Amino acid sequence: MCRWAAYRGEPLYLEELVTSPAHSLIEQSHCATRAKTATNGDGFGIAWYGDRPEPGRYRDILPAWSDCNLRSIARQIRSRLFLAHVRAATGGGTRRDNCHPFVHGRWCFMHNGQIGDFEHLRRPMENMLDNDLYAARTGTTDSELLFLLALQFGLGGDPLGAMAEALGFVERLAEEMERPALVRFTAAFSNGDELYAVRYASDQKAPTLYAAPMGENGGYCLVSEPLNDDNAWAEIPDGSAVVVGENGVDVLLFGAADIAVRE
Amino acid sequence: MCRWAAYRGEPLYLEELVTSPAHSLIEQSHCATRAKTATNGDGFGIAWYGDRPEPGRYRDILPAWSDCNLRSIARQIRSRLFLAHVRAATGGGTRRDNCHPFVHGRWCFMHNGQIGDFEHLRRPMENMLDNDLYAARTGTTDSELLFLLALQFGLGGDPLGAMAEALGFVERLAEEMERPALVRFTAAFSNGDELYAVRYASDQKAPTLYAAPMGENGGYCLVSEPLNDDNAWAEIPDGSAVVVGENGVDVLLFGAADIAVRE
Amino acid sequence: MCRWAAYRGEPLYLEELVTSPAHSLIEQSHCATRAKTATNGDGFGIAWYGDRPEPGRYRDILPAWSDCNLRSIARQIRSRLFLAHVRAATGGGTRRDNCHPFVHGRWCFMHNGQIGDFEHLRRPMENMLDNDLYAARTGTTDSELLFLLALQFGLGGDPLGAMAEALGFVERLAEEMERPALVRFTAAFSNGDELYAVRYASDQKAPTLYAAPMGENGGYCLVSEPLNDDNAWAEIPDGSAVVVGENGVDVLLFGAADIAVRE
Amino acid sequence: MCRWAAYRGEPLYLEELVTSPAHSLIEQSHCATRAKTATNGDGFGIAWYGDRPEPGRYRDILPAWSDCNLRSIARQIRSRLFLAHVRAATGGGTRRDNCHPFVHGRWCFMHNGQIGDFEHLRRPMENMLDNDLYAARTGTTDSELLFLLALQFGLGGDPLGAMAEALGFVERLAEEMERPALVRFTAAFSNGDELYAVRYASDQKAPTLYAAPMGENGGYCLVSEPLNDDNAWAEIPDGSAVVVGENGVDVLLFGAADIAVRE
Repeated sequence: MCRWAAYRGEPLYLEELVTSPAHSLIEQSHCATRAKTATNGDGFGIAWYGDRPEPGRYRDILPAWSDCNLRSIARQIRSRLFLAHVRAATGGGTRRDNCHPFVHGRWCFMHNGQIGDFEHLRRPMENMLDNDLYAARTGTTDSELLFLLALQFGLGGDPLGAMAEALGFVERLAEEMERPALVRFTAAFSNGDELYAVRYASDQKAPTLYAAPMGENGGYCLVSEPLNDDNAWAEIPDGSAVVVGENGVDVLLFGAADIAVRE
Repeated sequence: MCRWAAYRGEPLYLEELVTSPAHSLIEQSHCATRAKTATNGDGFGIAWYGDRPEPGRYRDILPAWSDCNLRSIARQIRSRLFLAHVRAATGGGTRRDNCHPFVHGRWCFMHNGQIGDFEHLRRPMENMLDNDLYAARTGTTDSELLFLLALQFGLGGDPLGAMAEALGFVERLAEEMERPALVRFTAAFSNGDELYAVRYASDQKAPTLYAAPMGENGGYCLVSEPLNDDNAWAEIPDGSAVVVGENGVDVLLFGAADIAVRE
Repeated sequence: MCRWAAYRGEPLYLEELVTSPAHSLIEQSHCATRAKTATNGDGFGIAWYGDRPEPGRYRDILPAWSDCNLRSIARQIRSRLFLAHVRAATGGGTRRDNCHPFVHGRWCFMHNGQIGDFEHLRRPMENMLDNDLYAARTGTTDSELLFLLALQFGLGGDPLGAMAEALGFVERLAEEMERPALVRFTAAFSNGDELYAVRYASDQKAPTLYAAPMGENGGYCLVSEPLNDDNAWAEIPDGSAVVVGENGVDVLLFGAADIAVRE
Repeated sequence: MCRWAAYRGEPLYLEELVTSPAHSLIEQSHCATRAKTATNGDGFGIAWYGDRPEPGRYRDILPAWSDCNLRSIARQIRSRLFLAHVRAATGGGTRRDNCHPFVHGRWCFMHNGQIGDFEHLRRPMENMLDNDLYAARTGTTDSELLFLLALQFGLGGDPLGAMAEALGFVERLAEEMERPALVRFTAAFSNGDELYAVRYASDQKAPTLYAAPMGENGGYCLVSEPLNDDNAWAEIPDGSAVVVGENGVDVLLFGAADIAVRE
C-alpha cells in the first residue's frame, strides 16, 4: 500500500507536506498507523511544476525517511503544484524506474492500488500501446502501465475520460481472458494546470482519498490518508473524481468506461 | 532496534537463516512482531568466513527485503561461521559505512543496542583510540566505535575481557563527565574460530539474546530475537556471554570491567 | 564499449581476474587503454557457479572500482566457472536490471557489442518471446533481449545453434523492416558446465575476443581485451565460437543462422 | 582531479552549466580532455541558493552522466548563485558524505586539489576543531576538513582571511610534524551573497582556475577548467582569490597565513 500527497495552490515549500517532522508524508511512511502494510520503505518520488511546462522530478529507492537529498530539496523548493509519493512495493522490483510519480511530457501521475492478476494482463496491456508509448515504458509496474494507457486513450484531451477508458479497458481485457477483473485505483495526476485525482475500484474496495483546503486563495491538498487528525480532511467517496483548478475544487462521479478491447 | 543472527557449525547456506521466506532474519525485518520499532529498513550486512582468515562481507543501504543481490549471495554461499544484521538506525546516517557487521582484520562485529548521550561521549571515545584504529573508523555509529574500543583493549588476546573493558570504559567516561552512564548492548563477534555473543546493560534493560542448537555436530545459532516459535530457543539472561567453539557452547557471567579512564 | 572476462578451470579466487591491482578487469575499467570509450563506469556484475546448478550473482550500478562489496566478495569466493563484466552504457539506463551478467535458471550471459537501430527492432524482438520469457525481461538493453531470444531458440539444447538463430533472426527482422541489419556481438555464456564465447558481426567489425590458458589442468580464460601484455593471449577471429569444457578448448566457425521471421 | 563550476548573476537554469549536452560540467566529466585523470565518475553534487539563507543541495555517488535526477533537477531549478562539482576520488571512499559541495549553515564549499600526507595530518587537524564542528564532520575527505577548519578560523567574519589561516595551519602543522607541507587548493565557497574562489599551492602547482562573464548585469562563472574553447575564459593566476559580488568581480593576491599551531 503506497501513500501520496498532492497540492495545488499558492506556492508552498514541499517540506510542509513531504518532510516536516510532524504529520508529513515521510513521517507517515516511517511509522504507519492506518495503512495495511507496516511500512513504505520501497522508494519515493516528488514531481513539481516550476517555470517550465514539464515538471521537475526527484525519486530514489532508499526509504524516504533516510534520504538527506529529499530533505534538502523539499526544504528549498516552493511550488504551486506538486505530487509526492512513498512506495510499498506490491509488484515490480525496487528501482528508480518503478518509483512514482511517472512523468511523460507535461503530465505526471502517481498511484496507490493494484491490478489483480497483473502478471497475465501485462503483456496484452503493453501490446495496446503505440510505438512511442511502448518505448516510453522503462519500468515494470502496473502503475506506470496504467499511466501510459491513459495517455494512449487521450489523457491530454479529456483527462478523466481517458482515465475511465484505461480502467475500462483493463476490466474488459480481464473478462475477455476469463480472468477476474479487479482494479483498485486511487491516483493523482496533473498537466501542470489542473490537479486531478480519482478513487475507483471494480470491487467497491478502493483505497481511501481525502481532500482539505490549504493556505489562502483556494489551495487544496489531496492525500491517500489524512496527514493529521484535523477535521478538515473530507473523505472522497469511492467512484469519484476530483479536479482542483483555477476555480477551486470539483468532485464528480467517476466510473470505468465501457470500452471494447481491440484485437 | 536492530536485529541479527549468527551461526557456527557445519557449513550452512546463508539463506537458511537470512533470506528464506519463512522465519528468516529478512522476513522479520520486513514485518516486525516483537521489536520496538516498526521496521528495519536502514540497511543490512552479512559477513562470512570461508577459506581465508578474514571474512567476506556484503552490506548495503537498501532495505534487505528488496535487495536481489543479497538473495542471490545468501543462496549461493555456504559457511561454517557467519553473521547477519538488519539495521533500524538510532544514530548515524544511512550509508554503507554505518552498516554492520564491521570488519577489522580477522574480526567481525555486529550490535543491537545503544550508548546513551553518545553525541557527548563520541569525541573522548575516539580520542582513546591509537592512530591506526582511529584511522580505521569510517562511519559515525556508536556500534563501530565500541568495536574499535574493544580492539584497542585487546580483543585479539582476551575477547570477553577486552569487551568488558570497552563497556566499562564508556560507563566510567560518562561518570567522569557527570553524564548518565547508559549502555545497552547485545552483540555478536568472531575471529573466524569462535563465535562470541554478549548481553549486557547498565540499567538491566539489555536487548534480548537467544540461542538454539542447529544442524548436527554441535552447531549453534544465536539471535537477537527467535526466528520462529520453536521451543528450541533458550533466552540468554542479561549479564551473560556466550562462546560457541569446537567444544560446543558455553554461557558465562559477564559484566563491564571497572577500568580507569586515562586522561 | 563494455569489457568482460570469463574463466573455467580449477577453482580460482575471483579477485585474480576481477579486482587485483595489476591487470584485472576492474583496473582496466578505470583507466582504459585500448577500448574506444574512455571509461566503463556504468555498472558491473559477476556470476559464479558454486554447489548449486544456478549461479550466484552480484551486480550494481556504481563504478566497479569504487565498490568495496565487490572487492570483498571477489576476494572471498573461489569458483571453477565465473563471468565478470564492466559496463559502458550504449543504451538502456544505468540500473541494476541492465547490468550483465544476465541469469535465467542455470544459464548466464554477458555481452559486448550492439544491435544497430535497436529502438526500432526492440518491440518486434520482444513480441517474438513466449510469455514466460517475455515476463522474465526486467531491463531495457539489447543484450538482455538477445539472451532471451537465444533461450527462445533453444539455448538449453543446442547452445551455439540457438545463438546463431537468435542473431540470424535479428538480421532478418531488420531486413524485413527495410532497415540496416547490423549486429556486433562478442559474448560469453554458460550453463555451469561448459563455457561458451562467440565473436560475430554482420559488418566484419566484431569487438575483439581473446583466450589464454590459465592455471593447471586445462583451465582457460576468455576476455574482451587482454588483461596484460603477456604473449599468451590468442586473438579469436571474427566468425568464431569458443567452447571450454572437460576436454579443453575448441574453436569453431560461427555464423548467424538463416532463419525466417515469423509473422 | 575533480572539476567544478560556480555561478553568480541573474538567475540561470542550472542545466546551462551543469548538464547541457555541449560544454557542460557533466559532459566534461564523462570525456575528460585536459584533466590528469581519465574520468570523474566518483560522485557529484550541486548546491544552490533560493529563497532561504541556506542552500539546497543534491549529491549522489553515481557518475553524474547517468543520473536522471540530476538532469531533471538542473533543468527545473534556476538560481542566482550555485556551485556544482564532479568528483574523481583521491582519498575518502565513494559515498554521499564525501561528495562536494559541503554545506554548513549558510555556507557551502567545494574543492579540487589535495593535502599531501593527509593520512598523518588528519587526526591533528580534526583535534583542532571545536566540539560542534567536530560533530559536524560526517565524511573522511581532506576537503570537508579544510572547510571545517576555515569555519573554525572564522569564515563567517573574514572569509578570505579564515581560509588563509586554515591553509597556513595545515602547512605549519606538517612542518611541526617534520613532514612535507604540501597543499594544492582550488576551491569555491559562498555564504549566499558573495561567491569566493581561491587558487593556491605551497609548491606552485595549484590546479587551474578560470573566470568568464556570463549573462547580463555582471554575472560571472568560475570554473576549474574552461567549459568550452571560447576566448572569454581568463586564467586566474596561482596565489589569487576571486570575489564575485554586487559590484562585479575582484581578483586579489592570496597566500596562506603564517599561523601558529596550538598545542
